[in-house]
Amino acid sequence: MIKTDILIIGAGPTGLFTVFEAGLLKLKTHLIDALPQPGGQCAEIYPKKPIYDVPAFPEILAGDLVKNLMEQIKPFQPGFTLGERAETIEKKEDGSFVVTTNKGTKHQAPVVAIAGGLGSFEPRKPPISNIADFEDKGVSYFIKDPEVFRDKRVVISGGGDSALDWAIFLTDVASEVVLVHRRNEFRGALDSVEKVSELSKLGKIELITDAEVVGLNGRNDLEKVVIRHKDLAREEEFREIDYFIPLFGLSPKLGPMANWGLEIEKNAIKVDNSYDYQTNIPGIYAIGDVNTYKGKLKLILSGFHEAAIMCQSAYQRIHPNKKYVLKYTTVGGVEGFDGSKKQAKREVVQSIG
Amino acid sequence: MIKTDILIIGAGPTGLFTVFEAGLLKLKTHLIDALPQPGGQCAEIYPKKPIYDVPAFPEILAGDLVKNLMEQIKPFQPGFTLGERAETIEKKEDGSFVVTTNKGTKHQAPVVAIAGGLGSFEPRKPPISNIADFEDKGVSYFIKDPEVFRDKRVVISGGGDSALDWAIFLTDVASEVVLVHRRNEFRGALDSVEKVSELSKLGKIELITDAEVVGLNGRNDLEKVVIRHKDLAREEEFREIDYFIPLFGLSPKLGPMANWGLEIEKNAIKVDNSYDYQTNIPGIYAIGDVNTYKGKLKLILSGFHEAAIMCQSAYQRIHPNKKYVLKYTTVGGVEGFDGSKKQAKREVVQSIG
Repeated sequence: MIKTDILIIGAGPTGLFTVFEAGLLKLKTHLIDALPQPGGQCAEIYPKKPIYDVPAFPEILAGDLVKNLMEQIKPFQPGFTLGERAETIEKKEDGSFVVTTNKGTKHQAPVVAIAGGLGSFEPRKPPISNIADFEDKGVSYFIKDPEVFRDKRVVISGGGDSALDWAIFLTDVASEVVLVHRRNEFRGALDSVEKVSELSKLGKIELITDAEVVGLNGRNDLEKVVIRHKDLAREEEFREIDYFIPLFGLSPKLGPMANWGLEIEKNAIKVDNSYDYQTNIPGIYAIGDVNTYKGKLKLILSGFHEAAIMCQSAYQRIHPNKKYVLKYTTVGGVEGFDGSKKQAKREVVQSIG
Repeated sequence: MIKTDILIIGAGPTGLFTVFEAGLLKLKTHLIDALPQPGGQCAEIYPKKPIYDVPAFPEILAGDLVKNLMEQIKPFQPGFTLGERAETIEKKEDGSFVVTTNKGTKHQAPVVAIAGGLGSFEPRKPPISNIADFEDKGVSYFIKDPEVFRDKRVVISGGGDSALDWAIFLTDVASEVVLVHRRNEFRGALDSVEKVSELSKLGKIELITDAEVVGLNGRNDLEKVVIRHKDLAREEEFREIDYFIPLFGLSPKLGPMANWGLEIEKNAIKVDNSYDYQTNIPGIYAIGDVNTYKGKLKLILSGFHEAAIMCQSAYQRIHPNKKYVLKYTTVGGVEGFDGSKKQAKREVVQSIG
């Protein structure tokens, strides 16, 4: 059982900044995210996209925003449960919550902050009837650790940046890389498209376009994929492989949280914005894009501010008898849980002789 | 009469970011500030101080925060009335407001956003009975344009960074620089103290310590200052000069706004945070450190978010019949009033031959 003060569901920008605001109040945090790395959409979907409306950044790439946040929260040593989805919640007699993931990992905390963005991003799965049978037995929707594919035969499917970038990357790892795409056009960064084209000419990527993977075979683990060509005159092709990696992007879903008894409005969690972004269940807060209230703006900035306000309320809940006095970091500095201390230099008082 | 859509009182970080949020909604803005430059406290009091709690900045100097904000809002060409204090407000028949400064400059707008921070920062004045008689006639509490002092005889009074830095700077401008301080110790950056000490040895700054300016003389304009030494055995000293610049820091005051009929609580303006940070007078909003509501946090971040929310409400007020649909800057980019356009590069759709 992982125990913490504030259990944060969702490791996007809002969830990450919650670590900082909680840390200033000496509260410990742990994050759960279905994606294999922190940063949410910013890291997974558009790391190279510029954002213009984060205050004091005339322009920042989404990936850099995440990098900066990770550096900012480092002193507060958050825990992470990544690649797992928060599945069930249970209230204990002592008022704390136990959240269990789809892989069975259990977390306990007196406060839960749902910073789930537009929901957990589920991979879009190709319509192959028996695909679920081979999940974790040769079918991967994410690449968490590329070393898994060392010297293996890999078929990637898709025509976007992820498919292109991973096909390129895996040429140095896998023994065989096949890229299957249903069109002859790729929707990705120009240099990625050119690089794939070049690697294809060198024989390092086998490019099969105007085609789709339509079937999977294997006794226990995946052994073969069936490839169907658009040109119906051509026969279906059977390929012996070790891994099939369909990369068709992600689609947002509120997911199992929809069944937690929270008040839902327009696919978002309703909160009381007049005070602290608490949901209808005391002790469970919702911040960032996942919540809704009158006048709500779905901006990264909103999630940041909601996180700050929410942590104050969480502090009261966790320490009902302590009074917290806001200390400015410009004055008091930032004391990390790792013993680090950032502080403005004191003014010098100096005599003139 | 200066006319705009949103008249912003206070050009600190919150006021500056309001320009950006308003600009995204195609609303024009104009800012009034009692200080001679934008940035509020951050620029005037602690430009070299690091701030640790602005999201995605593990550390940023207050002066750099202001610089970044100025760059971010540049496309929206805000107007500025600087070095003047908003004095009176009047409601017109058409529902708009006219705000007049202490120097008589008039501004008209349908919406007023008070982003006044802790109030306007008034210079701390030395207790010299007739000092008001010489204001703008030889006594300056701010240095707005150093060229005013070209080839003049100047007495600066004070022992902090401002006094030290301006004494150093004016040695290249004024014909005579005298620095009077009531102690022999200075409270400033080490290198400034050393530099003053060095310039004093070179005869470029005349340093009079353990002494105070206690009197001012002149028929119309200032002609002489009276300096009293701590060592009472010494006589009072009369100095012929052109300018006396007392630099004793600033103290915050809500100032004339306290008489505008706004609901005040604990020296702050009460707003309704359940929706849009509007005050008890419809059309007048209060955002940032100047406002108060249940759960208010006096963070720069709070002012940023309040600005974003407030601008949406202002838009409804200014365009009651238009429906605004939030466009993400990552998708729609930022279109400046100066014709500039920032936008993410489109994805490339590319064939592989």
